[in-house]
Amino acid sequence: MLSQSLMDAGRFFFSRGWVPATSSNFSVRLDEERALLTVSGRHKGKLTEEDFLRVAIDSGFSLDVGKRPSAETLLHTQIYVREPDVGCVLHTHSMPATVLSRLTEGVLLLEGYELAKAFPGVDSHEASLSIPVFANDQDIPRLAAAVDAWINRHGLPVGYLIEGHGLYTWGATVDDAVRHVEALEFMLECELWLRRVG
Amino acid sequence: MLSQSLMDAGRFFFSRGWVPATSSNFSVRLDEERALLTVSGRHKGKLTEEDFLRVAIDSGFSLDVGKRPSAETLLHTQIYVREPDVGCVLHTHSMPATVLSRLTEGVLLLEGYELAKAFPGVDSHEASLSIPVFANDQDIPRLAAAVDAWINRHGLPVGYLIEGHGLYTWGATVDDAVRHVEALEFMLECELWLRRVG
Amino acid sequence: MLSQSLMDAGRFFFSRGWVPATSSNFSVRLDEERALLTVSGRHKGKLTEEDFLRVAIDSGFSLDVGKRPSAETLLHTQIYVREPDVGCVLHTHSMPATVLSRLTEGVLLLEGYELAKAFPGVDSHEASLSIPVFANDQDIPRLAAAVDAWINRHGLPVGYLIEGHGLYTWGATVDDAVRHVEALEFMLECELWLRRVG
Amino acid sequence: MLSQSLMDAGRFFFSRGWVPATSSNFSVRLDEERALLTVSGRHKGKLTEEDFLRVAIDSGFSLDVGKRPSAETLLHTQIYVREPDVGCVLHTHSMPATVLSRLTEGVLLLEGYELAKAFPGVDSHEASLSIPVFANDQDIPRLAAAVDAWINRHGLPVGYLIEGHGLYTWGATVDDAVRHVEALEFMLECELWLRRVG
Repeated sequence: MLSQSLMDAGRFFFSRGWVPATSSNFSVRLDEERALLTVSGRHKGKLTEEDFLRVAIDSGFSLDVGKRPSAETLLHTQIYVREPDVGCVLHTHSMPATVLSRLTEGVLLLEGYELAKAFPGVDSHEASLSIPVFANDQDIPRLAAAVDAWINRHGLPVGYLIEGHGLYTWGATVDDAVRHVEALEFMLECELWLRRVG
Repeated sequence: MLSQSLMDAGRFFFSRGWVPATSSNFSVRLDEERALLTVSGRHKGKLTEEDFLRVAIDSGFSLDVGKRPSAETLLHTQIYVREPDVGCVLHTHSMPATVLSRLTEGVLLLEGYELAKAFPGVDSHEASLSIPVFANDQDIPRLAAAVDAWINRHGLPVGYLIEGHGLYTWGATVDDAVRHVEALEFMLECELWLRRVG
Repeated sequence: MLSQSLMDAGRFFFSRGWVPATSSNFSVRLDEERALLTVSGRHKGKLTEEDFLRVAIDSGFSLDVGKRPSAETLLHTQIYVREPDVGCVLHTHSMPATVLSRLTEGVLLLEGYELAKAFPGVDSHEASLSIPVFANDQDIPRLAAAVDAWINRHGLPVGYLIEGHGLYTWGATVDDAVRHVEALEFMLECELWLRRVG
Repeated sequence: MLSQSLMDAGRFFFSRGWVPATSSNFSVRLDEERALLTVSGRHKGKLTEEDFLRVAIDSGFSLDVGKRPSAETLLHTQIYVREPDVGCVLHTHSMPATVLSRLTEGVLLLEGYELAKAFPGVDSHEASLSIPVFANDQDIPRLAAAVDAWINRHGLPVGYLIEGHGLYTWGATVDDAVRHVEALEFMLECELWLRRVG
């Protein structure tokens, strides 16, 4: 069950400290028109069945009476709109993502990592993953437009960072997206240490 | 049950290493006149029903025969006295709180964090959270007076630090206070890293 | 059961963050001619019985129809070929291994560690463990040849690092190999900190 | 049961990464003449009933046929001999203890920590805890003599470090000793960070 796999993902992320204090949000595509999204304000490490709602992909509007979707719904639905193969979008809020996003302007380059091969189409550690860093913005439509503009120009990245706010990534399935979170969070942690020791 | 939620909070904090070696203390408001507080000297990560006692909010005196309240009871009751909406006060003792409180004089500014929105009334990452840092003091009434004086002057902060001693924060409910601990401990950890890499 | 001990090892390594996102791989010698290896692409922290296959030690070829061995099979079988006493080879992919392997050319020297005594034949902290660091290479036969050449010249190390890719180590039994992973990962973590504080 | 409390202590320390790879050792006083000690070579995070043996406090000799005590038995028994009130001696092997012991000559001073109050007789954060650092030595009687000489000169510390080897501490009961480990490991971790940020 899709909500169950998001609940499990949340528990795993929580055990790592990646979803502190009602931050973060998760979604999964239900069909061409609808997605299941975490309700705003719930602790993503302790999700239950009541903590999800369905939204319309084209508008981001709630389809479940009385449930308020995450303020960041557009950041999920915009990916489902533009990428028909994406089935799950995950936003985590770890310390490395938060810190590195504040220290990096424009694009964070992840190079020389064997773990880059966790992403489809990447078959060598010589690959360079470009992770765009967007300024944080409480005006979500404006932030989503900045993300759209970047992707139109540079193609779909494996994920992106929002300054002081964390990581967005996705995959064809929940399993794939969770793997991408784990790979990116790992590489971000390595980057932090490379900057301090190297 | 209120003691149960404090026991659960303690287990969570213990799993993160935030309540080492009988440090820390927790309380919850029972009514206008009484609070439930952790007994001095018990390990806050392994609390049982016997590890709580009731105190009078106005005096800090124990209402349970034979049980000694935390030496820091006044730091809890002073918040209940001044803030009728506060229902829970939590003191944790993490490494980031301990280290940063020793490296910071006066006030620690937390800026640029999306997670600032975990606090009521904060709706933007552009908010700046001022966390006062008080010198440690075994004379608790004197320390409590310093806290009172600061709040009278600057208004209620989201929490404060005691040098080499940790973090105090609060919330309307135990859930809120736990979320505030998690958010502050996260931002303190980010600050430590920002100082070392940035 | 040998697969069970590899599954348990994987769970332990996962709890430490040493086997992120389908990285890593484990094997155990079945007899002179065959080894049991983890299937490519499975998450090594959540292995089940279906995630193993048997390979021929001399060729690295799969003996189980429909199951694809790890791309790195040769890095396991080459050790079984040259070292008859080795019964288990483990590859983990931790942050310290990944970062240090990128900061070190040639050989990483671990000196002054009491924990060096975790390895057979080492009875003093004055021992110096030489951990070769090989450049990463998607051409595994070529990488295996580089490992063979180094061992021919310098003798069998306690383990080796692949740049940006992690650690390989081994032991007579699964227990021994797991102990060697734990000891090396510990010393690598110490090295990271020594470089940043010392 | 005393062995049970040592097994539980081992599990807790293991969960923190403080007892890697068959390092560390624990003991508890049985009576004036005998102590219970962990057997050499067992993983201290996964102890069972079979992993303990009794030793004579005055000689350090095993009282259980076929079981070999830790090479470091003297470091335990010497404390029981000199301090009649000590009922438990614990040796852990954490990264902070290992790293700091290599960066510090003579004595590590822990000052300004509220958590110093975890130790009997300390009632203020203004206390300064002097933690001697001894050079590592495979000749345990010689190392024990160095410890004895220091204590004769300076009095009993709250614990001591052995270079590249870890921490020894003790308490009246297992609970006390575990609390002392937790407090010291916490302060050592703080020290590491203070040296890197402050």
